[in-house]
Amino acid sequence: MVTRTVDLRSDTVTKPTEAMRAAMANAEVDDDVLGYDPTASRLETEMAKIMGKEAALFVPSGTMGNLVSVLVHCDVRGSEVILGHNSHIHIYENGGISTLGGVHPRTVPNNKDGTMDINLIEAAIRDPRGGLVYPTTRLICLENSQANCGGRCLSVEYTDRVGELAKKHGLKLHIDGARIFNAAVALGVPVHRLVQAADSVSVCLSKGLGAPVGSVIVGSKSFIAKARILRKTLGGGMRQVGILCAAALVALQENVGKLEDDHKKAKTLAEGLNQIKGLRVDLAAVETNIIYLDILDDSKFTAENLSKSLEQHGVLVMLEGPFSIRIVLHHQISASDVQYTLSCFQQALTGVQDENGN
Amino acid sequence: MVTRTVDLRSDTVTKPTEAMRAAMANAEVDDDVLGYDPTASRLETEMAKIMGKEAALFVPSGTMGNLVSVLVHCDVRGSEVILGHNSHIHIYENGGISTLGGVHPRTVPNNKDGTMDINLIEAAIRDPRGGLVYPTTRLICLENSQANCGGRCLSVEYTDRVGELAKKHGLKLHIDGARIFNAAVALGVPVHRLVQAADSVSVCLSKGLGAPVGSVIVGSKSFIAKARILRKTLGGGMRQVGILCAAALVALQENVGKLEDDHKKAKTLAEGLNQIKGLRVDLAAVETNIIYLDILDDSKFTAENLSKSLEQHGVLVMLEGPFSIRIVLHHQISASDVQYTLSCFQQALTGVQDENGN
Amino acid sequence: MVTRTVDLRSDTVTKPTEAMRAAMANAEVDDDVLGYDPTASRLETEMAKIMGKEAALFVPSGTMGNLVSVLVHCDVRGSEVILGHNSHIHIYENGGISTLGGVHPRTVPNNKDGTMDINLIEAAIRDPRGGLVYPTTRLICLENSQANCGGRCLSVEYTDRVGELAKKHGLKLHIDGARIFNAAVALGVPVHRLVQAADSVSVCLSKGLGAPVGSVIVGSKSFIAKARILRKTLGGGMRQVGILCAAALVALQENVGKLEDDHKKAKTLAEGLNQIKGLRVDLAAVETNIIYLDILDDSKFTAENLSKSLEQHGVLVMLEGPFSIRIVLHHQISASDVQYTLSCFQQALTGVQDENGN
Amino acid sequence: MVTRTVDLRSDTVTKPTEAMRAAMANAEVDDDVLGYDPTASRLETEMAKIMGKEAALFVPSGTMGNLVSVLVHCDVRGSEVILGHNSHIHIYENGGISTLGGVHPRTVPNNKDGTMDINLIEAAIRDPRGGLVYPTTRLICLENSQANCGGRCLSVEYTDRVGELAKKHGLKLHIDGARIFNAAVALGVPVHRLVQAADSVSVCLSKGLGAPVGSVIVGSKSFIAKARILRKTLGGGMRQVGILCAAALVALQENVGKLEDDHKKAKTLAEGLNQIKGLRVDLAAVETNIIYLDILDDSKFTAENLSKSLEQHGVLVMLEGPFSIRIVLHHQISASDVQYTLSCFQQALTGVQDENGN
Repeated sequence: MVTRTVDLRSDTVTKPTEAMRAAMANAEVDDDVLGYDPTASRLETEMAKIMGKEAALFVPSGTMGNLVSVLVHCDVRGSEVILGHNSHIHIYENGGISTLGGVHPRTVPNNKDGTMDINLIEAAIRDPRGGLVYPTTRLICLENSQANCGGRCLSVEYTDRVGELAKKHGLKLHIDGARIFNAAVALGVPVHRLVQAADSVSVCLSKGLGAPVGSVIVGSKSFIAKARILRKTLGGGMRQVGILCAAALVALQENVGKLEDDHKKAKTLAEGLNQIKGLRVDLAAVETNIIYLDILDDSKFTAENLSKSLEQHGVLVMLEGPFSIRIVLHHQISASDVQYTLSCFQQALTGVQDENGN
Repeated sequence: MVTRTVDLRSDTVTKPTEAMRAAMANAEVDDDVLGYDPTASRLETEMAKIMGKEAALFVPSGTMGNLVSVLVHCDVRGSEVILGHNSHIHIYENGGISTLGGVHPRTVPNNKDGTMDINLIEAAIRDPRGGLVYPTTRLICLENSQANCGGRCLSVEYTDRVGELAKKHGLKLHIDGARIFNAAVALGVPVHRLVQAADSVSVCLSKGLGAPVGSVIVGSKSFIAKARILRKTLGGGMRQVGILCAAALVALQENVGKLEDDHKKAKTLAEGLNQIKGLRVDLAAVETNIIYLDILDDSKFTAENLSKSLEQHGVLVMLEGPFSIRIVLHHQISASDVQYTLSCFQQALTGVQDENGN
Repeated sequence: MVTRTVDLRSDTVTKPTEAMRAAMANAEVDDDVLGYDPTASRLETEMAKIMGKEAALFVPSGTMGNLVSVLVHCDVRGSEVILGHNSHIHIYENGGISTLGGVHPRTVPNNKDGTMDINLIEAAIRDPRGGLVYPTTRLICLENSQANCGGRCLSVEYTDRVGELAKKHGLKLHIDGARIFNAAVALGVPVHRLVQAADSVSVCLSKGLGAPVGSVIVGSKSFIAKARILRKTLGGGMRQVGILCAAALVALQENVGKLEDDHKKAKTLAEGLNQIKGLRVDLAAVETNIIYLDILDDSKFTAENLSKSLEQHGVLVMLEGPFSIRIVLHHQISASDVQYTLSCFQQALTGVQDENGN
Repeated sequence: MVTRTVDLRSDTVTKPTEAMRAAMANAEVDDDVLGYDPTASRLETEMAKIMGKEAALFVPSGTMGNLVSVLVHCDVRGSEVILGHNSHIHIYENGGISTLGGVHPRTVPNNKDGTMDINLIEAAIRDPRGGLVYPTTRLICLENSQANCGGRCLSVEYTDRVGELAKKHGLKLHIDGARIFNAAVALGVPVHRLVQAADSVSVCLSKGLGAPVGSVIVGSKSFIAKARILRKTLGGGMRQVGILCAAALVALQENVGKLEDDHKKAKTLAEGLNQIKGLRVDLAAVETNIIYLDILDDSKFTAENLSKSLEQHGVLVMLEGPFSIRIVLHHQISASDVQYTLSCFQQALTGVQDENGN
């Protein structure tokens, strides 16, 4: 019987804290579709300020944040966006930018550290004099931290260089900043500095920050005005949404400061896992709160049966591939949970390896 | 100075009740995108049962409810939908079914009572043997009650006949039931009977029912399975959404029973307004909670300056046209508010009509 | 055994003349996708001049002409076009503007004479201050002559008024001029005057003009530059297309002058048909080369079996409805063909009506 | 003064032969949109037979051939196609499959020889059990010969293996066979064998085969029936198109046999160019009629000024990059043209290299 649950599948699984619940119960609200919800306005003002942009808009999810942003920048038929071949937008958002928006994606390989080579980005920009056969490049997308590369961070310098490239070619720069606070904390820079070169950023409130629902996109006033219309078209306009925004305001206060601790716990867990026979973690890649764990041949385990074995002890992880597991730390995982997780892994691998049972 | 606010702009402006706030503060939640939120599941099960369908899905708005429904039924390129020329989907949802979904709308005139002539619907269905030039009709949409026709209700008999027509031609039937509970109450029929012929229904929780946010769509299991994917594509998947669903569950319990009273208040208000010189209401058309008010020539008022005049007394209404105003009743308008509203209208019109001032 | 064929299904069925065949055999051509075909350039220059516009582009069909035009004017996501409920674009082009282009159509009823009420057009234009729920009206489409209204013509005055309305609201005006030469001839005005108010016109070369393939769109230089790219995207760029353009140049020379005669033959045929017991033609509606024929109850015929009966004598017509037939005249129908057709109709109706046989 | 033109920009620049012109002048034609053109039918029957498929459809261009094919296979919203990162569809067709069709492209790197690694293709196929975040993989596209890889050919064995992979995962296989006859000739296999594994193939008639206009797509009867409708939607239905098909039938007879000679001339030219100081050609890559030529640093030439220098002598080539030129052989380039071209290159490079003039 499971007596303890350690949910490491994602940082989206956190439960609202007491302070968030109290804030939701007491939130001052009005009809936000009509533009009157004071708590939504307060969150949007706050986020715009934190991110160093003119304006902000609350959206129900990170997927909508990215979708709205790409579609606003690519509002003319025949647009192309350059993005990483391993980016969340390209891999995990149902191809929505094409399916719903008709935007053509042009991918550039993500390096192991999440970057794309600047010269490859430039080579992918379509020559506007190229005759009748090219779509028009209108946007470059970065992702920071880059989930599919293990939560690696893009530096201020790198981001600025991509921003200069975009400017040189008259393109916009969008950052999928679902975990941009993790990146800022890991890099030790103010988050507004990290996204200074971007025309728009989507920021997730329900990942590391622990709010129950929502993301915010930030950008210029005219970008946000267009985004507000498109959010309505997509069905993302919500009435007394201040309820959710109240929790998000608490999340900003409570949890940004805890991200550094999440990263430390990730480091500790990664190091511990790497010492277990049959497992391997690229420790240098653990920059934030995400761990990619390889299961070695000699372990005789697949990701699937290892995760099932762990589940019996209440430890929940995400399958990444046949022999690969993803673990994500968050503020509701304690130091003791980390030790418990390590012992469960140890036991699972030892139990199977031992032919005499146990 | 305004000392009292009577917000009659829409039934979307209601504030969450204490019971809803308590429910949100105490809701049991989990990650609904991963499929684990128990309160979301509870609301969906409850709504499916009430509506007499196999399954249900919570969405952030009525617009997304309709968009997802139309796009799931019209998932093949080249689809056409038949709908009222005055329907909410056609007029007030940004053309999203075309803009995002590529679906071609074919309109049939809405009669004054909200119906479309059955023979005109049938005539609009494309002949599948019609050569290479026709899109494929795949869906008929009704709206009940029909907002733009003054909240008029479609009867069970009418709905069933459209359902039979759809079946005969192999089409699906979707009902935009943003205010379907109002219609059921006004008609005195169980809501599940009213939508029996429909393959899908979208129901708004944040209009007359008073929940802070959200709609639910209902239909077959396979319809809802596809809708769940499309909701994710649109960015409508939300994490600990049980917060909002908890309030919606309270709304179902608290407010369905109050709709009849909303309709009575609407009747009272409509009759009172119709007796004021310079105003006219088609009383027969006031079947539910919506009143369309015409401002007569001799009043010397436009909708714009009459609404501004009322606003000074805290009475908020919606402009419909240069000489037309929309008023919507809801559970947070009291009998006393109705009388206050009447007196404000009376005063506004008298004040201007009286050349000697006041 | 059929010894004679009189093909009245459409004016698209004409065969190339000897002069066209000779022109095609001798056309000077080059790769038009690379922009070098001299005959295509000659046709485009000629058509731009005739229509009084800056530039022109050859396209494979009228459907592509309209599709490209609407999509160029509506190149921003969220566009709406106002057009007749009975227009060719809305009824007979597969809904392509939505299916492929995401453009939302807003229809206004076509009167019997093909016009739409100007005040209804204006009422359909979306208020740009209308909040977040409206698509953006960007285009009005007219059709001249209006096929589905029996080839009725829109006057210069009407067209100019719609053009002024468009200008007043910052909209574009496109004319589906598949049979614009028929309209100009019937109205007795120069074709360039008739389309003076339009930002773009599509003109069919393979209908009354008798060219084997193709349409031309005309408009400003910047419109045509965008249209050229979109034509390539749609796959309408053709290599040594001068072959087809050579025939079209002959068609312009040979056949514009014959349209008046087509109209006279239509009048003659219409009058003759109207005198046959069991048939009715609205003679006032026969302004150009199209006849809509109603089959009366007492004839005991349906459109289907009447057309089959005629087919046995080589007379081919198009079904429009269960009791309605469309007939289109063109330059390869002689005066003798008209008389033969009348005798076949007479015989068909008499043969069945006579219970004693024959 | 130029006295001779050798147009090596593309194999699309060929002029119709006398036999083609005669065939066009005498073609038996009818309205193909109504389905009656006998010459179009004859070409389609012939092409279906040659390619070993059930049915065929003439389209105005290779771009439309690919667009129609991809969109028919991906007719359900949310489809993804796997294709080479350097494929014509991805690079040179305006992103039409996304822009117009909403299809999401997933690219796999093309190797130097035009292949994609089979295991990378398989890894790119979306797991249908992958939750709510993946589009649905529905199609794999190959290109044979692969233009952007220098006209390299995919073998029967490779194509069959990709076909098996597609079948294993329930996917369709489309081959962009713009130059499939070149590939078949170079590989020495019957063309129907080379495309045996494909569900659809687009074949260009106006490239190496020398017809003035058009491509043909082949596939099953049901595929072609859907393609015919989509061709109409795109505006690719043409009336008396038998004119163009007549020329294409001649092209099939006259020019398939000449492709081997084109390849020999390409080889001769490539070898000659490779011996000129300052130029380099990867001779092993010259499998068909395309040559990619690198301009070496020591030549002091850019592609742009070298091509301008050649143009003064009537030799026309295509720029590929700052120091790269593309040359394409076809049946209207003679052995003497090849020698003349070599001498022009020699002179151009020597003239500049020699500081003393000439």
